Amino acid sequence: MTATCPNPIQPPVRTLMGPGPSDVAPSVLAALAAPTVGHLDPYFLQIMDEVQTMLRQVFQTENQMTMAISGTGSAGMETCVVNLIEPGDKAIICQNGVFGGRMADVAERVGADVTKLERPFGEVFSTEEIAAAVDQHKPEVVGIVHAETSTGALQPLEEISKVVHDAGALLLVDCVTSLGGLPVEIDRLNIDAAYSGTQKCLSCPPGLSPVTFSPQALAAMDARKQKVSSWYLDIGMLRNYWGADRAYHHTAPINMNYGLHQALRLVLAEGLEARFARHRLHHEALRAGLQAMGIAYSVANSDHSLPMLNSVLIPDGVDDAAVRKQLLNDFGIEIGGGLGPMKGKTWRIGLMGEAAKKSNVILFLGALEQCLGAQGKNAEPGAGVAAANKRYLE
Amino acid sequence: MTATCPNPIQPPVRTLMGPGPSDVAPSVLAALAAPTVGHLDPYFLQIMDEVQTMLRQVFQTENQMTMAISGTGSAGMETCVVNLIEPGDKAIICQNGVFGGRMADVAERVGADVTKLERPFGEVFSTEEIAAAVDQHKPEVVGIVHAETSTGALQPLEEISKVVHDAGALLLVDCVTSLGGLPVEIDRLNIDAAYSGTQKCLSCPPGLSPVTFSPQALAAMDARKQKVSSWYLDIGMLRNYWGADRAYHHTAPINMNYGLHQALRLVLAEGLEARFARHRLHHEALRAGLQAMGIAYSVANSDHSLPMLNSVLIPDGVDDAAVRKQLLNDFGIEIGGGLGPMKGKTWRIGLMGEAAKKSNVILFLGALEQCLGAQGKNAEPGAGVAAANKRYLE
Repeated sequence: MTATCPNPIQPPVRTLMGPGPSDVAPSVLAALAAPTVGHLDPYFLQIMDEVQTMLRQVFQTENQMTMAISGTGSAGMETCVVNLIEPGDKAIICQNGVFGGRMADVAERVGADVTKLERPFGEVFSTEEIAAAVDQHKPEVVGIVHAETSTGALQPLEEISKVVHDAGALLLVDCVTSLGGLPVEIDRLNIDAAYSGTQKCLSCPPGLSPVTFSPQALAAMDARKQKVSSWYLDIGMLRNYWGADRAYHHTAPINMNYGLHQALRLVLAEGLEARFARHRLHHEALRAGLQAMGIAYSVANSDHSLPMLNSVLIPDGVDDAAVRKQLLNDFGIEIGGGLGPMKGKTWRIGLMGEAAKKSNVILFLGALEQCLGAQGKNAEPGAGVAAANKRYLE
Repeated sequence: MTATCPNPIQPPVRTLMGPGPSDVAPSVLAALAAPTVGHLDPYFLQIMDEVQTMLRQVFQTENQMTMAISGTGSAGMETCVVNLIEPGDKAIICQNGVFGGRMADVAERVGADVTKLERPFGEVFSTEEIAAAVDQHKPEVVGIVHAETSTGALQPLEEISKVVHDAGALLLVDCVTSLGGLPVEIDRLNIDAAYSGTQKCLSCPPGLSPVTFSPQALAAMDARKQKVSSWYLDIGMLRNYWGADRAYHHTAPINMNYGLHQALRLVLAEGLEARFARHRLHHEALRAGLQAMGIAYSVANSDHSLPMLNSVLIPDGVDDAAVRKQLLNDFGIEIGGGLGPMKGKTWRIGLMGEAAKKSNVILFLGALEQCLGAQGKNAEPGAGVAAANKRYLE
């Protein structure tokens, strides 16, 4: 075999306005490159403690068992599902997008008796339909997505949480895209288990999945009859590694935790309320610009539209792939295409974490105008940027 | 809740001579900090291809399905087990250390009918006993550890592979500690599935797990009756993400793959044979030094002693924790303590990847002499360093 040695890493600089990863701050990249220490080094144990303390603040929880799973957001989903659900347990999984569907698949793989509650892509669930389903099926767990990355829909949770808990079930919530960009109030909303990803509104590269578990969720795990199907994601063992015992489980991704540590420092230094307001502001400016260009959101009700993930309908006659390719090649801007049934129908424009800023909104609207113009589809030159600027000057 | 914001990341600089993570080259740390791009960016797809091409060379295989799992070595173990084994399948797992025991635990969790073949810590398995067990139990899969990180034992595989395949079973091998430090000849030895970690002899920080599967292993997966218990680690889906389809599965850890890419470049630039010889040389010098200091290896037969992980017996009357603490605090040197039944009985001294070098061997021997001297347990001042130097001058 002849040795083949490719060129060194030298990525193009992108503006990451897709569904994640989002733009990463230079200080987070620098933290990633700090010298590696051992996974049981006193310094790393301190970093683990600090990551936990900061994650509790971002999750707005006092939950002791709050930490980062050594895998991406989907590993966090799997962690929550496989630990909370035993074979034969009844679970209601709410599916109004790709990630609800994924949660149902994960639950079925562990042998759960899954009832899928379905809504068309882009809609959200009403308290009434959850109440009816819970009443009918009497599940141990209800799983739902807070911020559907595939559709841009924001699911209200407050009333649903009451209904779920009144029925004695546990509430499992996907917060992959919401955490750090809008309130994820674990304790106030009484959420039992939640998972997120680092590469969305926390603006850290992908690789870790923050999770949090309520005391009730831990009690349910303690009462399990069978071992958790996954060794790697077994919270019983991870509690001893991330807890006071520091019992060796696996070798944590040291440098990824450095990066998350710095990303969380930036979140807390900005302040949660200020960060949420920033996401809201740039979303409104982008929305004003897109609307002025005649581009509509795919989530009909704007109250249920995510600020950090703007899913819009591709205008008739516009070549999806050509626009995204031109945005990437001519401007270095990444946006996302539609997922699942939305493929070819929507664009997903992220304003997550570091990427939620004025310069990205203005650049994107101007660049999109050029791309649409290249296809003869730009109705009103200058309208998008003008409308966004108007919102900023309010 | 009052915001608590810890100090920025500023790790102490360590010399990592434990069981992993190992020392990381500055160029690998720099690659980690390269700008993040999207996980479906043409640039990242190229990096994935190049990582696969380089991993095939390091694994010495033509296996198409060779890639990096988005988790640490234990996630790679779980990937191999859950994909190869269905509930009710018979598996023989060879346990002569902590990691064989872990593999058996993972296999039991997926509902395998597991036969544990046990050997005391530090010993290896003979072809005859594997042959007898395979003959008796007729398993679908035989799992064994190539390089037991908990004991420092090197398991010969060539004859065992023949026995396993003659019986129609698949061979699953843990190469976490061996890959990049001694030959892992997947194709020549006819290994069907193997996993490793990035933080051992590849000298990349922890966070990814290289795996490889033979066409026979993939055929067994294609013939499965049930879905794989883990969605995150389902090779059927990962094949479409890492293969030509590039179908979205999860968001790969972009920057960790940058780091692995550079680490693999360094391995191939050095050349596998030269790298293996380097590990062997520094192991021999360390062994000469330790022996001159009256310190014995815990693996009795030196033919079965790993070059990159030197497990030695702590001399009588020496305070294990005090020595390791002094090495860390006074010299910045990390070594490992014993795992499982070896706790308090052995030290594990790693010479992995970047850490396998003359200066580490000499520094460690000199530092250990000082630590033993502090406890009044250093018999012959200067003997260790002198013996290592003698080996280097041969």
